[in-house]
Amino acid sequence: MKGISLLGATGSIGTQTIDIIRSNRDQFELVAIAVGKNLELTREIINEFHPKLVSVQNQADAAILQREFAGISKILSGDEGLIDVAVHPDANLFVNAILGSVGLVPTLNAIEAGKTIALANKETLVTAGHIVMARARDRKVPVLPVDSEHSAIFQCLQGERQKNIERLIITASGGSFRDNTREQLLDVTIEEALHHPNWSMGAKITIDSATMMNKGLEVIEAHWLFDQPYDKIDVLLHRESTVHSMVEFHDGSIIAQLGSPDMRIPIQYALTYPERTPTNAARLDLTELGTLHFQKMDFNRYRCLRFAYEAGRRGGTLPVVLNAANEVCVQAFLNGKIKFLEIEDVIEWALENHVPTANPDLDTILSVDQETREIVTKHLVSRFH
Amino acid sequence: MKGISLLGATGSIGTQTIDIIRSNRDQFELVAIAVGKNLELTREIINEFHPKLVSVQNQADAAILQREFAGISKILSGDEGLIDVAVHPDANLFVNAILGSVGLVPTLNAIEAGKTIALANKETLVTAGHIVMARARDRKVPVLPVDSEHSAIFQCLQGERQKNIERLIITASGGSFRDNTREQLLDVTIEEALHHPNWSMGAKITIDSATMMNKGLEVIEAHWLFDQPYDKIDVLLHRESTVHSMVEFHDGSIIAQLGSPDMRIPIQYALTYPERTPTNAARLDLTELGTLHFQKMDFNRYRCLRFAYEAGRRGGTLPVVLNAANEVCVQAFLNGKIKFLEIEDVIEWALENHVPTANPDLDTILSVDQETREIVTKHLVSRFH
Repeated sequence: MKGISLLGATGSIGTQTIDIIRSNRDQFELVAIAVGKNLELTREIINEFHPKLVSVQNQADAAILQREFAGISKILSGDEGLIDVAVHPDANLFVNAILGSVGLVPTLNAIEAGKTIALANKETLVTAGHIVMARARDRKVPVLPVDSEHSAIFQCLQGERQKNIERLIITASGGSFRDNTREQLLDVTIEEALHHPNWSMGAKITIDSATMMNKGLEVIEAHWLFDQPYDKIDVLLHRESTVHSMVEFHDGSIIAQLGSPDMRIPIQYALTYPERTPTNAARLDLTELGTLHFQKMDFNRYRCLRFAYEAGRRGGTLPVVLNAANEVCVQAFLNGKIKFLEIEDVIEWALENHVPTANPDLDTILSVDQETREIVTKHLVSRFH
Repeated sequence: MKGISLLGATGSIGTQTIDIIRSNRDQFELVAIAVGKNLELTREIINEFHPKLVSVQNQADAAILQREFAGISKILSGDEGLIDVAVHPDANLFVNAILGSVGLVPTLNAIEAGKTIALANKETLVTAGHIVMARARDRKVPVLPVDSEHSAIFQCLQGERQKNIERLIITASGGSFRDNTREQLLDVTIEEALHHPNWSMGAKITIDSATMMNKGLEVIEAHWLFDQPYDKIDVLLHRESTVHSMVEFHDGSIIAQLGSPDMRIPIQYALTYPERTPTNAARLDLTELGTLHFQKMDFNRYRCLRFAYEAGRRGGTLPVVLNAANEVCVQAFLNGKIKFLEIEDVIEWALENHVPTANPDLDTILSVDQETREIVTKHLVSRFH
């Protein structure tokens, strides 16, 4: 029986993780969860799984739930609550499916506590990949990817040797606006941006798909997860989101992982690794699909991807700025404060105005993250109001 | 340094194997070869590699070469020569790239001698898979596939567990006549049949691709190599020969191996396994290719594939008959004695007229093989002359 602690239990990845636990209760026990403000869904989870520990965002909500579930679950709140969930003694596997840079510190704590890490939180590696992977190596803790692309690469690398890798090939669907020219992007609406052609995901990541920042963050994550230089990480447009990613080896052989666009497959792989267990996920029928398309990535069309490569290559605190600026801009776009193409303009501005620190420690990362959010927010106000 | 013994050194797979040895002389030594009647090319190989042992088909040719290469290579001939090559004491790896059922006994001898087997000879597994794989298991000898499809599956299975396999998916280009209806197949010529759209291969296998018997034999081989029931082996039409084959696992994940249609990649993989070393093979550029197509297999269009599944499922000596009848028919077609569609009619006739023996021993296999060739040859004479 694997004990599982889960950050972000009520989010998109979180609820799908719980789906998998529900379907495999002989294998998994949900021992601790952290949630935001969705008390309704949190109550359902507690009633169904009786996790020993639950952490919510606000102290007030914690007090409400503690009264309701006294004797069933211990209820905590805030950043400390997140850490207590991450290091829960009955958990073997820590699934980090929380959004944002708040996911970083709990991951480091879970590594310190020797938990296997299943990582869906992008910020952990984007902002602090050098710290996280070094500590995981020291503690001999596996860091398992949950993202479909990284899971694909991780699966392709099973039984293979690192030194034989020629390059990683990350596929990108192209997002909501893949058939639009840059001119047509000028006045796209939030609703249009939120309509992803293949995947059903949260709002933030759907916008990141449309700007291709999502792929950029994945490139940086892949750099850290698989210890590959940026020159050996390519991105390929692949409309069907069927080939989730590939690895080319130096003998000319390419190994690819394919599947229907169902996040439960990669999530479950992280949960069962190195085993595989049957899923209810829709089977991929290539004959029904008929055709797979592949296309060169256009770095002028997708400027955010170029920013991400540049930030990754130059390193230091630049990826922190990239990520924080992006988060503020996407939120501003979702709130109707800026236009779609302004997202990339403001990210570019933030990167150009940052003097990077090399090899930053945790405190520097967290303060640059905070500063960037403030600077970009101020910039948005001064620029657009 | 790996010592290599090679049956079929002057054939298509053989010369490509030698190409790889030539490019990696620090890794491989060609210690023994067996050839047919191509003395010209044999002389070149001896001059370049000085193999300790050379076996030719005829005694007369052996005498000629022995005079020329006295003190360089020992020259043998016939079936005994093949076996001496297969078990050469300085060879670690036995590459069986000879055509026809003559490849079976040397493989068994090499297994007995504890050599790792790299298998390109289809007949070994098609006619005697139950014997060969059992002996390989007993002697703990790896049987490595050379065929691009089986190499692909073998690569996809690295780091994976047998019990998690949902099905093997073997891809088929469709061969020379994939765009012809059955009506259009009535009067196709030998030259048309020999024009494979993707691969440059020997005549026999190119015709087998056109009839889809090649894929049928591969299904039977896959059954033995990967220990999978026929219900778990599917064939998919894939025009581009880019995805060389796939494995679907029971969690819905599919692992595929891709590459340019260059046999040196799978041959080299068998030689270097579990390592991979760089090749000169053309790199696959999916963006240049742009599109991959997948299509359901039509068992009425490709009757030979249906025959192969049926012969495989019913088992016993039926695959022996399938293979021997096919070999005689393809030769008759290449000699202009029968028409293209008559190949399958005669194979069907041979299968229907055979009373199979279950679990045949080696002698039974060899005698059924011989008998089938005689019966089918006689049938062709009586039917068509």
